[in-house]
Amino acid sequence: MSVASLQVAIRFHPPSYDIRVESVPIPEITHPDDAIVKIRFSGLCGSDLHAYRGHEAVDKIHTCGHEFIGEVIKLGSSFTAHAQRLPSLYAKLKIGNKVVCPFTTSCGECQMCRSGFTCRCIQSKLFGSPALEGAQAQYIRVPNAGGTLFNLSDPDTWPLSKPKQVSDSSLLLLADILPTGIFAAIQALSHPKVLPVLTATPWALHDKASDDISDLFPKENVPTFAIIGLGPVGVCATISLLDQLGKRQLPSGFRIVAVDPVESRRNKMRSIYSKISDSEVRPEAFMVRSIEEAKETVQAWTSGVGCSAVLEVVGNNSALTLAYELVQPFGTISSVGVHGERPFPLTGGQLYDKNVSFDFGRCPVRSLFPMAFDLLIKRQDVFGTVGDESGLIDRIVGFDEAVQMYAAFDKGEVGKIVFDPWKET
Amino acid sequence: MSVASLQVAIRFHPPSYDIRVESVPIPEITHPDDAIVKIRFSGLCGSDLHAYRGHEAVDKIHTCGHEFIGEVIKLGSSFTAHAQRLPSLYAKLKIGNKVVCPFTTSCGECQMCRSGFTCRCIQSKLFGSPALEGAQAQYIRVPNAGGTLFNLSDPDTWPLSKPKQVSDSSLLLLADILPTGIFAAIQALSHPKVLPVLTATPWALHDKASDDISDLFPKENVPTFAIIGLGPVGVCATISLLDQLGKRQLPSGFRIVAVDPVESRRNKMRSIYSKISDSEVRPEAFMVRSIEEAKETVQAWTSGVGCSAVLEVVGNNSALTLAYELVQPFGTISSVGVHGERPFPLTGGQLYDKNVSFDFGRCPVRSLFPMAFDLLIKRQDVFGTVGDESGLIDRIVGFDEAVQMYAAFDKGEVGKIVFDPWKET
Repeated sequence: MSVASLQVAIRFHPPSYDIRVESVPIPEITHPDDAIVKIRFSGLCGSDLHAYRGHEAVDKIHTCGHEFIGEVIKLGSSFTAHAQRLPSLYAKLKIGNKVVCPFTTSCGECQMCRSGFTCRCIQSKLFGSPALEGAQAQYIRVPNAGGTLFNLSDPDTWPLSKPKQVSDSSLLLLADILPTGIFAAIQALSHPKVLPVLTATPWALHDKASDDISDLFPKENVPTFAIIGLGPVGVCATISLLDQLGKRQLPSGFRIVAVDPVESRRNKMRSIYSKISDSEVRPEAFMVRSIEEAKETVQAWTSGVGCSAVLEVVGNNSALTLAYELVQPFGTISSVGVHGERPFPLTGGQLYDKNVSFDFGRCPVRSLFPMAFDLLIKRQDVFGTVGDESGLIDRIVGFDEAVQMYAAFDKGEVGKIVFDPWKET
Repeated sequence: MSVASLQVAIRFHPPSYDIRVESVPIPEITHPDDAIVKIRFSGLCGSDLHAYRGHEAVDKIHTCGHEFIGEVIKLGSSFTAHAQRLPSLYAKLKIGNKVVCPFTTSCGECQMCRSGFTCRCIQSKLFGSPALEGAQAQYIRVPNAGGTLFNLSDPDTWPLSKPKQVSDSSLLLLADILPTGIFAAIQALSHPKVLPVLTATPWALHDKASDDISDLFPKENVPTFAIIGLGPVGVCATISLLDQLGKRQLPSGFRIVAVDPVESRRNKMRSIYSKISDSEVRPEAFMVRSIEEAKETVQAWTSGVGCSAVLEVVGNNSALTLAYELVQPFGTISSVGVHGERPFPLTGGQLYDKNVSFDFGRCPVRSLFPMAFDLLIKRQDVFGTVGDESGLIDRIVGFDEAVQMYAAFDKGEVGKIVFDPWKET
């Protein structure tokens, strides 16, 4: 193999804590629906740590990473003008297009994709896993590229208010963490059990609500939310929740408690909030709290009733248990944390006794791109900066720092890290 | 105590399987918000069996039962014209009113009640439990009577199309099982993740769905539902689901599989379906199946994708596990079964991997009365009969048969039993 067909990539070696920067072949088109993308930036994400820590029993050496933006440099035969099969999603992609990619592939054509549930596409694969080589490389092969890639060169994909400047590193946040945060917020705000407090009308799914009860709905009932976990996704969830609730202009206002046991994360959240709260409809109260403080805050705010909804952005049993504790009867828990196979910490009896609703799972990033793109542009003050106390991206580094960055990220010593695979050491 | 102040009641003696018919005092008003109701009929419900079987570690002798209709014979001072406090819910109740009662009390005034979540009223108590004497008696004390009782003597409570005849025994079904069945169906049909397949538009909670995906929504995607458990509540859930889906006149139609391991229950469901399917919009397919058959049916119908929603009307771990197995990724499980404190049978990882949504818990009967009343009147052919193969109520018996009826019901030898506490032996 000639040197020209090799690239540099960050590879995971099982069983755990073994990251190496190695030369590997530049991928080739292997299916007519493939694209090859030259990567501009790739991200290091909290869920990369699951394999890194050996929690996923991965037994295959593979390239890490599932967040990237870049440029299409090769396309399979499905994209050529004389292809037999050229559905609209595929027809739009051209060599040279600037693209951002969800962390999972999606065909865009199956029942799941067409329902908007793109991350559970019947053919879906996760980048940076044994099933599909990852994005911490210089080049990547994207299966089902027409249904998967979001084409930033297509003017139709841009919001009407196209901005002068959107930083490339901020676009990387569209691959996972920003839409995942939005997903956490949307699941909570769209749940039928949360609507009563947002609309000041009782839970009544058709036109048959009991009128006598309806007349009594307390207008002073303040919607109250908790976000558990203030890593990068939790911060995105908080920003999205503030944005969406602000737009609703609720007469009762709303309250948010953002919870994390780690002080540095709480401080980051406070800095970001102080920046964005100038330009937004402010909540009646916004508190950043440790776990015990959060319990007291919710108790005091709601006289012990609990939160209308809790956004769980951690993915472990203590987060689920805290979410259960903070949520009100008939409240909902929007859980976007990646959970493992430990026994569930709650019994059916506990869930019955509190009439708890849950939405679990992975964000359908491809489906949420337009909404995430809007928020990304609106909040460039947070997403567009690097290394700022009130920004989301901590550092942009070369692959030479990969090993130490994995270690530091694992220990919580650094925030969101972005790799520039072309940076000279 | 004089004989005139005594009544006959069915009492549970701990720890298990010990039912006795005994003389106990007729209850008195103990709080200004109380009513005393003379009971016309009371029901025997599947959830009475939890205490009967010793599963709830009840250590107090108490009167059983939580379903009743009857007549108000005494009211507390909150209901008198010169009372200090006479909110609208309380003002309407008069001596002599015919009433039906939810299986839990609700004040009608707290945040939970006003949101429509009446079964989690801050003061809520369950009839027929150690906390509150039950309905398998001749008289009962109803706390928070103004917020709890549904007044059948108030013309405002009746549907516009007031029928000539509604049987009293059928009205008893409004206390629990009919609204609980409706609740199971409504939770499923109103869930945002189920709406794509009902409305033929992708999951898109605001106006920002990805247009390119939206264009591709497959019109031929048929909404598919499973109901697990065909006891009386499961039958009510099925009737409600058929009714609500029928009204929607979906261009794609819909499919239902109703599941129970017990052949007699399956046969009952088939008889009822054959009666009601004449007058309704029929589903594309309606199957009554055993567990293994149901798995095959869903597999074949959906090419392995799964059901849009599953109604879990049993309340044990095998039902939850089956629901998980049958539901599609991004599907929802509406769980109204009363669950115990056994470890939950699914891990967070399993829930994440399938993007499962859950709604757990108890039906807010008081809130759903109007909707349940409509369906009760519409389906008197099923609900209004007694002892009919295609009816829901199996027998009306006196208290002299109480001991044997509990035993027979426990063994699944009889269907829905109604007690007439005034029936001479």
